[in-house]
Amino acid sequence: MSNSNYNRLKQLLSEVEDISKAMSVLNWDQEVNIPPKGISHRAQQIGTLAGISHEKFTSKELENLVHKLQKEDLPFKEKRNVEETSRDLKKAKSYTKEFVVKSSQVTSQALNAWNKAKAEKDFSIFKNDLQNIVELKKEEADLLGFERHPYNALIDIYEPNTTIDDLDVIFDKVKTELSDFAQEIFDRPKPNDQFLYKQYNKDLQIDFSKHLLKQMGYDFEAGKLDISSHPFSTSFSPLDSRITTRVDENYLFESISSSIHEGGHALYEQGLGVEDYGLASGNYLSLGIHESQSRLYENNVGRSLAYWKANFNELKSIFSSKLEKVALQDFYKAINIVQPSLIRTASDELTYHFHVLIRYEIEKALIEGSLNVDDVPAFWNDAYKKYLNIEPQDDSEGVLQDIHWSHGSFGYFPTYSLGSFYAAQFYQTAIEQNDDIANQIERGNMKPLLTWLRENIHQHGRLYSSKELCKKVTGEELNFSYFMNYVKRKYSDLYNL
Amino acid sequence: MSNSNYNRLKQLLSEVEDISKAMSVLNWDQEVNIPPKGISHRAQQIGTLAGISHEKFTSKELENLVHKLQKEDLPFKEKRNVEETSRDLKKAKSYTKEFVVKSSQVTSQALNAWNKAKAEKDFSIFKNDLQNIVELKKEEADLLGFERHPYNALIDIYEPNTTIDDLDVIFDKVKTELSDFAQEIFDRPKPNDQFLYKQYNKDLQIDFSKHLLKQMGYDFEAGKLDISSHPFSTSFSPLDSRITTRVDENYLFESISSSIHEGGHALYEQGLGVEDYGLASGNYLSLGIHESQSRLYENNVGRSLAYWKANFNELKSIFSSKLEKVALQDFYKAINIVQPSLIRTASDELTYHFHVLIRYEIEKALIEGSLNVDDVPAFWNDAYKKYLNIEPQDDSEGVLQDIHWSHGSFGYFPTYSLGSFYAAQFYQTAIEQNDDIANQIERGNMKPLLTWLRENIHQHGRLYSSKELCKKVTGEELNFSYFMNYVKRKYSDLYNL
Repeated sequence: MSNSNYNRLKQLLSEVEDISKAMSVLNWDQEVNIPPKGISHRAQQIGTLAGISHEKFTSKELENLVHKLQKEDLPFKEKRNVEETSRDLKKAKSYTKEFVVKSSQVTSQALNAWNKAKAEKDFSIFKNDLQNIVELKKEEADLLGFERHPYNALIDIYEPNTTIDDLDVIFDKVKTELSDFAQEIFDRPKPNDQFLYKQYNKDLQIDFSKHLLKQMGYDFEAGKLDISSHPFSTSFSPLDSRITTRVDENYLFESISSSIHEGGHALYEQGLGVEDYGLASGNYLSLGIHESQSRLYENNVGRSLAYWKANFNELKSIFSSKLEKVALQDFYKAINIVQPSLIRTASDELTYHFHVLIRYEIEKALIEGSLNVDDVPAFWNDAYKKYLNIEPQDDSEGVLQDIHWSHGSFGYFPTYSLGSFYAAQFYQTAIEQNDDIANQIERGNMKPLLTWLRENIHQHGRLYSSKELCKKVTGEELNFSYFMNYVKRKYSDLYNL
Repeated sequence: MSNSNYNRLKQLLSEVEDISKAMSVLNWDQEVNIPPKGISHRAQQIGTLAGISHEKFTSKELENLVHKLQKEDLPFKEKRNVEETSRDLKKAKSYTKEFVVKSSQVTSQALNAWNKAKAEKDFSIFKNDLQNIVELKKEEADLLGFERHPYNALIDIYEPNTTIDDLDVIFDKVKTELSDFAQEIFDRPKPNDQFLYKQYNKDLQIDFSKHLLKQMGYDFEAGKLDISSHPFSTSFSPLDSRITTRVDENYLFESISSSIHEGGHALYEQGLGVEDYGLASGNYLSLGIHESQSRLYENNVGRSLAYWKANFNELKSIFSSKLEKVALQDFYKAINIVQPSLIRTASDELTYHFHVLIRYEIEKALIEGSLNVDDVPAFWNDAYKKYLNIEPQDDSEGVLQDIHWSHGSFGYFPTYSLGSFYAAQFYQTAIEQNDDIANQIERGNMKPLLTWLRENIHQHGRLYSSKELCKKVTGEELNFSYFMNYVKRKYSDLYNL
C-alpha cells in the first residue's frame, strides 16, 4: 500500500491512539496503584490528555485527509477504515466546547451526589443531579442527531447502528419468554451452594485464576492480572492487555468468574491486529460485541459441565479440605443457581437480563420525558416486584446500586444483555461448525475455541458493523432464540423441568 | 495575584506538566509492571507524548507570554518563575527537529549495542556507537551554546550554572585529599561483614524498609513502594511520589540502603509546593541537589551510629536468628566498610567518588577531543589502577558497567558526587543550627530533620540556583571540606586512624 494520504492518516491516527492509550495507562494505574492523595492531579492529567486527543483527532489535516480518501477507490479494509474514521470524526465534532465543559461539571457533581446518596441509602440526595444528567443527555442526543427517538443517539455511542427498534424486539422476549421460563425455575427447590461460601485462601484463588487464564490462551507475556475493587480489563495495545479481578476470601466463585469474564475481554484485545494499531480495523467493534466475548467465556463455557469436567479436579486438589465431599455435578449446580436477586452484578446469567431490562425501560422513558426523575424509585420497585417478585429495602440496593448514570452513561446498560445474546449465538455457531471445540474444552484444551473466535470475530476489529459481523458469522442477525434455547436446554436439565 | 498573563502562563505550564507527568507514569509502569511484549508500543506512546509536550511548551502563545512578563515588574517568586521558564524555553528551542530525530536514532542504536557489548563483555561492539554519541553530544553542545568548553553545555542540562571550573576544583581535591585518606583506610584491616550476607526473607526486608520510610516521614498516602530491577524514584505530583527498591535475599543492606536513598529523593518531591505544580518553583532544582537529599538520608543519616542506635533493635527482632550475636558497633562497622571496588553502584560512600572522577575525566576528554574512543578502555583501566589499585577483568565490570552513555547522558555522572558533597554541607549546617536534629534521630524521631530540609531546601524548588541556595542555607557556596571533614571524622573513628 503506497497511498501516501492513507499512510499519513494512519500515522495521525496512531498518534491519537498513543494519547488515548496513555490515558488508559493512567486510568489503570488509578484503579490498581494510586495512593489516595494522588487522585486529584491524576484527574487533571487525564483531562489534559483527553483535550489533546480530541484536538489532534479533529485537526484540519486529519479531516482533509479523510475527505480526500473518501473520494478515492480504496481496497475494502482501507475503505472501511476511512468510513469509520469519518463516522468517529462526525461524532467528535458534534460536541461543542461548552457541552464538554458542562458535561464534565455535571457528571463530576453527580458522582459526588451519587456517592453520598448511596452511602445514605437515599435517592432524594441524587435526584436533582440525575435530572441534570437527563437534561445533559437530551442535549447530547440533539448534538449528535438521531432518527425517531433521542435515545437512539445514546445507544449509538456504545453500540453503533443498533436502535430502540432492535432492543424492543429483544427485550419484549425477555419480558415474555425469558420471564415465563424463569418463573418455572423459581418454583423449583434451590440447589445447595453453601460449600462455595467457606474460607478460601486468596493467594490460592488467584493462582487458580491464573491457571484458568493460561488455559484459555491469555498471553501473560502480553498482559497481567492484578487485584482491584471492581474487576475490569483494559488494553494499551494488543501486546499489553491487562485484567484485574476481585477476590473474596469467603466466596470461591468470585475471582474465578471475574477472571474468566475479564479474560474473555482481554483475549479479544490480544486478538486485534497489532499492525492495525490506531485504525478502526484494530479496534473493538462495540461494547455489545466486547461483552459477547467475556460472557461467552464466563457463562457459555465457564459455567458449563464440560469445562468443569476438565478443571474441577485441579480445583479440588487445591482446596481439598473444603471440596473433598463435593461432586462435580453438585459444583455445576451450585455455580448455576437461578434466583431472584436485587443486585445486578451478583445475579445469575438468566435473571441478569431483568436487571438490564428495567434500566433500559427507565432510561428510555427518562430521555423521552414519559417518566419523571421523582418517580424513578417507585418505577424501579414496581418493576422488581413485577419481574422478580422482590423489592429493595432501600435505594442503595435499588436504583442507586450502579455508578453508570452518575458517569453520564445512558444507553450503556443494554449492551450487557446484547453481549449475552450475541455470545449464545456465536457459541452455538462455533460448536456447530467445529465439533472439536466442545470436545476439546472437556479435555482442558481451549485452543480450538480461541482459534475460531480469532478467525471469526477478533481479527476483524471494526471492519464490519455488529449486524454485518453477526450475519457473516452466524448466517443471520442477532436472534434472541439462540439465548433462549441455550438457557432452556441448560436449565431444564439442571432443574428437571 | 490577578496578573492575567501570569495566570495564563501558569495554566499552560500546568498542561505541559500534565503531559510530562503522564510520561512519568508510563515510564514507571514500564519499569514496574509492563509485560515483555508491551515494550515496543510503550516506547512509541512515550515518544508521542514527548513530541506533544515539546510542541506545547514551545508554542507561540507561551513564548509571547514569557516575553511580555519579562518586561513587567513582578514579585520575586513570579519573576523567578518567568526567568526559569525563559531559560527552559531557550534550551527547548535550541534543538532542531533533525537533531531530535537523529538523537533518538543514535541512542536507540547505542542502547542495543551497549546491551550486546555488556553481555559479551566486549567494548569493541559498543565503540562505534560511543563515537556516534560523542559526535552527537558535541553537536548538542553547539546547539545549546557554551562558554569556553563544550562540556559546560552538557553539565548545564543536569546541573544548571555549574561548570568545569567548579568541578575541577572539587575533583582535584578528590584526587588529592580524598585519595590520600582512602589509602590510609585501605591499609587497615577490613571489618567483618559476613553476617550481612546470610539469607534474609525478602518480604520481611520490604516490611522493614517500609517501617524506615514511615519513620523518615515518607507519606504513603502520597506514594508507594514497589520492586524493580533498578531502584528509582519518580513523581507524578507532590501528592504521588513513588519509590522502587531492589531486594537481595542474600544481602541485608541492599533494600535498606536503596529504600532510604530513594526515600530521600521522594521526600524532596513530596516537599515541593502542590500549588506550584508545573512552575519552576514547584520543580526540583537540579540533579545534584536532588541527589543531595537521597545521599544525606542514605549516608550521613542512614549509615550513622545514631540512626542505628534507634533502629538496630527493631532489625534484630525481625531477623533474630541471623543477628542475635551481632553488636550495634559491629553492624555499624559492617555497613561502612571502605575498600577498592570495581562497580560504582556497589561501592562505599568514600571510594564512590573515584568512580565518578574517572567518568568525569573521560567524558571531558572525549568531548574536547583529547581522548579517542578507541583508547577509553585503556584509560579506564589505568585510572582504576591509579586511584584504586585494581583493574577490571573485562569491559563489563569496567567501562561498560553503566547504561548512561548509551542513553546519551554526558555530564550526568558528576551530579552524583555533587550530591554527596552538598549533602555533607547541608547536614553539617542542619545539625549545627538545630541540636535537636541529631538528638532526635538517635531516638527514632526524624521530624526535626525533615522540617529543616522542607524549610531550607524542598519548598524553594527552583527559586534559587544551586549556588544561591547553598549560600543562602549554609553561608557559602559548595565547599568540599565539609565532605572531607565528615569522612575524616567518621572513618578515622571507624578505622582507628
